[in-house]
Amino acid sequence: MRDFSNDHSALALNTATLGHNIDGHGAGWSPEQVIDACAARGYGGIVFWRHEIGDRAIEIGDRVRAAGMQVAGLCRTPFLTGRDAASNNEIKASIDMAAGLGAGVLTIVTGGTDPNTKGVLDSQKRLAERLSVIEQHAADRQIKLALEPLNPMFGGNRTCLMTTRDALNVCDLVASDWIGVAVDVYHVWWDTTLAQTLETATGRLMGYHLCDWLEDTSDMLLDRGMMGDGVADLKAIRKAVEDAGYSGLCEVEVFSSENWWKRPPGEVLDVFVERFRSHC
Amino acid sequence: MRDFSNDHSALALNTATLGHNIDGHGAGWSPEQVIDACAARGYGGIVFWRHEIGDRAIEIGDRVRAAGMQVAGLCRTPFLTGRDAASNNEIKASIDMAAGLGAGVLTIVTGGTDPNTKGVLDSQKRLAERLSVIEQHAADRQIKLALEPLNPMFGGNRTCLMTTRDALNVCDLVASDWIGVAVDVYHVWWDTTLAQTLETATGRLMGYHLCDWLEDTSDMLLDRGMMGDGVADLKAIRKAVEDAGYSGLCEVEVFSSENWWKRPPGEVLDVFVERFRSHC
Repeated sequence: MRDFSNDHSALALNTATLGHNIDGHGAGWSPEQVIDACAARGYGGIVFWRHEIGDRAIEIGDRVRAAGMQVAGLCRTPFLTGRDAASNNEIKASIDMAAGLGAGVLTIVTGGTDPNTKGVLDSQKRLAERLSVIEQHAADRQIKLALEPLNPMFGGNRTCLMTTRDALNVCDLVASDWIGVAVDVYHVWWDTTLAQTLETATGRLMGYHLCDWLEDTSDMLLDRGMMGDGVADLKAIRKAVEDAGYSGLCEVEVFSSENWWKRPPGEVLDVFVERFRSHC
Repeated sequence: MRDFSNDHSALALNTATLGHNIDGHGAGWSPEQVIDACAARGYGGIVFWRHEIGDRAIEIGDRVRAAGMQVAGLCRTPFLTGRDAASNNEIKASIDMAAGLGAGVLTIVTGGTDPNTKGVLDSQKRLAERLSVIEQHAADRQIKLALEPLNPMFGGNRTCLMTTRDALNVCDLVASDWIGVAVDVYHVWWDTTLAQTLETATGRLMGYHLCDWLEDTSDMLLDRGMMGDGVADLKAIRKAVEDAGYSGLCEVEVFSSENWWKRPPGEVLDVFVERFRSHC
């Protein structure tokens, strides 16, 4: 084992980064193997995906904490808007899973534009209405709901929030302490108004996701870059996030079907630690 | 020939929409065939691409005007930023071609992030510096240079301008009457600040490009939608553009390798007229 110092305890692994359990990519590690490997490297936390948890939420959450880490989050609610929007009960079940894990934050990718609407404003209003309905369920279980704006290329069928400003606008509509925003480098790196927007986000930032935008992105969903390999100004974004009062973990989330998902998971975890210390 | 009324004289065809001369798509119509087909349908103008013009700029421009239409624009300068940035002479040659055609507007897709930079602000400054150098050449030839922001998914290797706000910021840096902005539905439809931004763009809008964003966009470059088939709020965007004082033509620009490029060009031109009248 390499001797990394402990100053990367702010680092959390999003398990999708290892590609496991997704379309056969990665090593197919169990949650326990991921927990042990992260703990051995001094990671501060882990973010899981629902399909990895099943009915083992309490067991997995306890195991993470016994290893000295946090369950930094859970990905994610089913869609709330668009043609694939889920029922309130399905949304609430994902909140219950987050509570079972002891995850403080549940990420929301909203879903796309609502049927028979044009543009995104109507869908954002619909999103706010749905959040107002489920907000009490989240509050009762002490689960923060983090709205994650996506790169505008995912508008249409995946999101109705394209910018951090959009997400904050919806927060304003709902006005709940349990609803905030997650900032993901992949989705916001290009936004020249980001620092200015984040100045208005104090107390509402609930997640910060790390990766990089490759100059030549070959696949819009599955070709994210390792920090330092792309063109995002990672240090400036992190400063803006921290200036807005964010003090949570920095979550690495690299979807990379043709590169990092094909490498040994232990090697990938080591590289993240190195890059986090040198580039983030 | 169908009997369309003349209220679509605000419509211009961007020739890429017929897919001709691009990777073997389309019918391979000559500029003369395009001119005749557009004139027969009452189009107000045509926008060509450089590779179609060669050394025939004056001849083709005259032919368009003889058919009662305008050369509404030329696509486009070589890149000004990023690793594939062209020389000043190459940029000036494209301005000369636009002048030969009698095209009032030359579109600029900027090129990507400059080598050894992070984020987009340094590249935007570099873009402004380059524009300052070539601006007089454009002024001498009475050619307006229209900065076209691209959807953020094209950040990295194609553009350093992701929003209309970005493009206007660069206009401010250069401060030339010959440099403005082109608004393309495909690139800006998602921007909830667009109308507000355009309020500050009076006198600087030099182009308006029409298509639609399909809910399920299968290819980020070549799966643009026909107006009305997607989720963009076309009427709201046009209103914002016209409220900003834009009185030029509405240019249809639909890259669609698997759908519209495979149809007979005359049919495609007819559908554009219908959709322009009903959906735009």
